[in-house]
Amino acid sequence: MSTVYEGPVQDLIDEFGRLPGIGPKSAQRIAFYLLRVPTEDAARLASAITEVKARISFCRRCFNIAEGEVCMVCADPRRDPAVLCVVEEPRDVVAIERTSEYRGLYHVLHGAIDHLEGVGPEQLKVRELVRRLAEEPVSELVLATNPNLTGEATAMYLVRLLRDVEGLRVTRLASGLPVGGDLEYADELTLGRALEGRREVHG
Amino acid sequence: MSTVYEGPVQDLIDEFGRLPGIGPKSAQRIAFYLLRVPTEDAARLASAITEVKARISFCRRCFNIAEGEVCMVCADPRRDPAVLCVVEEPRDVVAIERTSEYRGLYHVLHGAIDHLEGVGPEQLKVRELVRRLAEEPVSELVLATNPNLTGEATAMYLVRLLRDVEGLRVTRLASGLPVGGDLEYADELTLGRALEGRREVHG
Repeated sequence: MSTVYEGPVQDLIDEFGRLPGIGPKSAQRIAFYLLRVPTEDAARLASAITEVKARISFCRRCFNIAEGEVCMVCADPRRDPAVLCVVEEPRDVVAIERTSEYRGLYHVLHGAIDHLEGVGPEQLKVRELVRRLAEEPVSELVLATNPNLTGEATAMYLVRLLRDVEGLRVTRLASGLPVGGDLEYADELTLGRALEGRREVHG
Repeated sequence: MSTVYEGPVQDLIDEFGRLPGIGPKSAQRIAFYLLRVPTEDAARLASAITEVKARISFCRRCFNIAEGEVCMVCADPRRDPAVLCVVEEPRDVVAIERTSEYRGLYHVLHGAIDHLEGVGPEQLKVRELVRRLAEEPVSELVLATNPNLTGEATAMYLVRLLRDVEGLRVTRLASGLPVGGDLEYADELTLGRALEGRREVHG
């Protein structure tokens, strides 16, 4: 399935094949799909790619996506600079913003520690986090990495790394049963965490 | 997971989400990947899309992919115009060309009859095939649609449709055991076909 088409078709297949999660078969399927659609549709895709590179980059403060130097959250003066929420990816910022529960700032690591994949703290925005903690008046760091193996490893690494930073409270998102979920279908780890983290209810 | 990002990022996710086989999650993953790669890499992808639309279309004779009006096979005067091989997709032309066994021309249907998916002969280049048979000196039609349900249905449809075309021999690619395959692992249908199509061997 390697180089079998003429010039531009093969180029297109190659380019799509470089994208994450797209194998040679899918790349070929997409290329033939694009050959078939109206030129305007293909042009829209091409210009969306060009536009995003021209207009979007990463916030130089928190590494969230940004139009310009600084992202919308960092640019908002109503946000509380004393609380920093550490997430793995820009999409996690979006997820937390949707809750409307959080008024602090963010720090996007751009990944999680995963030794099997060769991702250590050096590959993440950890150095930049340490620098921010030295320069900004942060009193609480909310670790909101994913509740899975690599996310937990990253959180634990940060807890140890920042143990001695004076006046800094490090917290972790609560683990427990998902709201609207069925206890019957919860896995035992989640259920265990939910029991461990149980809270007193005042009537 | 719908509209959650700002302008250009969401536009890019939407455009990728329209491609076949790319769901909203993959579209997001690709968008963030593109945000991260050097601008030149993203520009190469965008221009590959633009280039393919500008330079490639379908051969007006056989509907294979073509730079210009007519494809490389149709433009080659050494090919035998008396034999026409009917395939489902341009990639099948590539597969057959790789064997170096075939010297005739092609006709690309752009799909197979699939009533469950709402694809009938009208959606395929069947009318154009019938027209070619009237205009060109074709003496053999090799049905090389896929040896699966929809490919077989398409072949059978064409056999019936072209039954009365005078002086036309309609053939079908042989079914049987794949070369280099293990008899033990062959499915019973393939093995049945191999038995049915057995040939005498002369020593």
